[in-house]
Amino acid sequence: MGAPSPGYSLTIRVEAPATITATSELAAAVGAAGGSVTALDVVESGHDNVVVDVSCNTTDTSHAEQIRGALDDLEGVHVRKVSDRTLLMHLGGKLEINPKVALRNRDDLSRAYTPGVARVCQAIAANKDDARRLTVKRNTIAVVSDGSAVLGLGNIGPEAALPVMEGKAALFKQFAGVDAWPVCLDTQDTEEIIAVVKAIAPVYGGVNLEDIAAPRCFEIERRLRDELDIPVFHDDQHGTAIVTLAALVNALKVVGKQIGDVKIVVSGVGAAGHAIIGLLQASGATNIVACGRNGAIARGQEHTDAHRVWIAENTNPEGFTGSLHEAIVGADVFIGVSGPNILAEEHVASMAKDSIVFAMANPDPEVDPAAAGRHAAVVATGRSDFPNQINNVLAFPGVFRGLLDAQTSEITDEMLVAAAEAIASRVSDAELNPGFIIPSVFDPKVATEVAAAIVAVASAPAPATAN
Amino acid sequence: MGAPSPGYSLTIRVEAPATITATSELAAAVGAAGGSVTALDVVESGHDNVVVDVSCNTTDTSHAEQIRGALDDLEGVHVRKVSDRTLLMHLGGKLEINPKVALRNRDDLSRAYTPGVARVCQAIAANKDDARRLTVKRNTIAVVSDGSAVLGLGNIGPEAALPVMEGKAALFKQFAGVDAWPVCLDTQDTEEIIAVVKAIAPVYGGVNLEDIAAPRCFEIERRLRDELDIPVFHDDQHGTAIVTLAALVNALKVVGKQIGDVKIVVSGVGAAGHAIIGLLQASGATNIVACGRNGAIARGQEHTDAHRVWIAENTNPEGFTGSLHEAIVGADVFIGVSGPNILAEEHVASMAKDSIVFAMANPDPEVDPAAAGRHAAVVATGRSDFPNQINNVLAFPGVFRGLLDAQTSEITDEMLVAAAEAIASRVSDAELNPGFIIPSVFDPKVATEVAAAIVAVASAPAPATAN
Repeated sequence: MGAPSPGYSLTIRVEAPATITATSELAAAVGAAGGSVTALDVVESGHDNVVVDVSCNTTDTSHAEQIRGALDDLEGVHVRKVSDRTLLMHLGGKLEINPKVALRNRDDLSRAYTPGVARVCQAIAANKDDARRLTVKRNTIAVVSDGSAVLGLGNIGPEAALPVMEGKAALFKQFAGVDAWPVCLDTQDTEEIIAVVKAIAPVYGGVNLEDIAAPRCFEIERRLRDELDIPVFHDDQHGTAIVTLAALVNALKVVGKQIGDVKIVVSGVGAAGHAIIGLLQASGATNIVACGRNGAIARGQEHTDAHRVWIAENTNPEGFTGSLHEAIVGADVFIGVSGPNILAEEHVASMAKDSIVFAMANPDPEVDPAAAGRHAAVVATGRSDFPNQINNVLAFPGVFRGLLDAQTSEITDEMLVAAAEAIASRVSDAELNPGFIIPSVFDPKVATEVAAAIVAVASAPAPATAN
Repeated sequence: MGAPSPGYSLTIRVEAPATITATSELAAAVGAAGGSVTALDVVESGHDNVVVDVSCNTTDTSHAEQIRGALDDLEGVHVRKVSDRTLLMHLGGKLEINPKVALRNRDDLSRAYTPGVARVCQAIAANKDDARRLTVKRNTIAVVSDGSAVLGLGNIGPEAALPVMEGKAALFKQFAGVDAWPVCLDTQDTEEIIAVVKAIAPVYGGVNLEDIAAPRCFEIERRLRDELDIPVFHDDQHGTAIVTLAALVNALKVVGKQIGDVKIVVSGVGAAGHAIIGLLQASGATNIVACGRNGAIARGQEHTDAHRVWIAENTNPEGFTGSLHEAIVGADVFIGVSGPNILAEEHVASMAKDSIVFAMANPDPEVDPAAAGRHAAVVATGRSDFPNQINNVLAFPGVFRGLLDAQTSEITDEMLVAAAEAIASRVSDAELNPGFIIPSVFDPKVATEVAAAIVAVASAPAPATAN
């Protein structure tokens, strides 16, 4: 599946003979090695030699080595240095903390700091809620991870998780104006994580849990929701559930089916699968079969994790037992949040007419989307290089914009459904087709409309409680 | 002592008759009530009435009420609204978190976030030290408080402490380009504070402890220094000690005395006093008498706090016992980090010839500086409205700039002394006089030179260990 990606772009500095064809030979060598040239800059030039920065996209580390070798092998060419542009952009980190107030002179200082600041402290000491008005708590959330389930990389620890949390924080600001700060914890103990997040909570108006392994993540979220007075959201669960529901709402419109009528097979019963099942049911789905590594989850099975017990008791109304491949026969919808290449083309072919396939495993989907597309009416993945990318960035910035603006302490299923509907409605009837069921992540209105949907629910009386 | 301060400035919106003298009458009324008018803006004008925003500095809340009343009492004048400009400037907090990298399109996203970021995570997973290069850890410190000893306000809790920590963070960025994030903890338990700071440490390149009550602050600092691999600095101790030493170095030059020869009385044996004593001894002071509420601390007394035991064992070589007023007789230097108005003019008069008085209690010094100045050769305070302001902002930004740049994990007395000497040397021999022993907090070179001094010590072989 690997196409050269700007996520792995290099700048290779080479010395080459000063001939008229030098740069085109360099470009041709990169191209022949499967790289995609994005720029050629001559940085030094002499009578005999030139120095050229060759920028190109590659697929992975071994491919980068291959391209380096291809250039080095050219007659008279010598590679001086290979720079990884992704690593270069990360030097010093991706976030900075800036004063919003000027501190140019004594008057500024006496208002923003001592002695003036004492009056602000006293106002908050008298009324703690004023912290939501007079401090960063108004607009700031914590992006909390223990580094135990980072991207597809697994348990890489808090330091190695930090670049992801910084990126997430950058997206919060860029897409929704939310100030977000990475909190990468040097502990993977459930009770200690809960204690630490509670201890640091005074500074924050919300908590976004991120890349925390199941089943720990369920307990942490539940307890923090109970024990804190600010909203707590596990993006791997609820962010994924929101965008999945948004995509499904539109996919069902494309095929002309109703959510209450369709049979849905969910592959993956971790954090994401569990939350997707809950939210689909909150939206009216009645016939969901969830499959783990050992096949369908059904009543009467022995499960130790509370979340699998819940799934067993609340899905699979027909009590189906069997493999994923058996479960999918005749299903209307397949939702994959599991692993790569677990379905073949024949399995998609076995689904009901006008089937819907969301193969969201990253980086490699549950089924080759091209193969799936030969049988399903709608196919979506988590990848940006296929149509219909189901990406959490459509949800989380607007969700927290709305939660902060509403100054709410609770997150309800009703809010999550409203967020999904707001995303789905960004695709107009005129735009809707099998290759466009979900808006672009760069659609500038998504976050605003998601936020407005959250605020509307939060302002309405008597909200329901989230599961 | 209260003069009208920009730290307590109001904008009072009034309706007044549309006469030619209206604005000047408003200004006169504010002046007569002791306020200092900074601006008069007519915001609406009609045939009969005008609406004027009167901006003025006041001294405190009751003074503000008095000025409001003085305006309301004017014939035909009606006060519509009083806005506190300090509170207005705090709306929404004083910090924001911004991406340092662009996120405009898919290529940006694939480098700063997925899939490219995975390679950065892997680099750090393979070599944890790379977090100091490829993440915010490179340039970011935590400003940690439990809200137990905030300014002169006492134990006001973490939410109410937040405006101070935000202000501190703003100063770190403004003066030294250090990204600093407030960590206000909802616990005042020593062990829990230690555990939380250790848990959040992966994101930070340093920890600045702030406004944590003694004696808890000593244990927290000591343990965190032992158990973390990043520098830990308690500003109330070491920041104060650095600027105090800097001022003393120059004050001693003014009076032509040597630090090893003078008798120094320190009033206050909390966090600041303890650190000042240690640093003055590291700089060669030999004759220090420390006084608490019950007079001089001396060998043979019973003390329960470890830091008082240390003071008893390491100061007061002559074994003096008695009151502060007795201790100060014949002393060369008085350093006050205690409370307001504990010395009268006669006590300063009882000191040695060419005495030095640093009365640093805030907001009201240990002795009226004008009275002290009639007897002492040099007088300094913590206030900005007298000469020689001894203010930590001269130290902490440059100290952490240096610690981050040196990527050091330890803070040594040698570094603190070097920082003090760097501050002192910003006052040239030509500039030095009894009213200018310490540079302005707005001297743009202080932080750079303090940082350079720290880096120089950190790069030198075999540093000593801090007490």
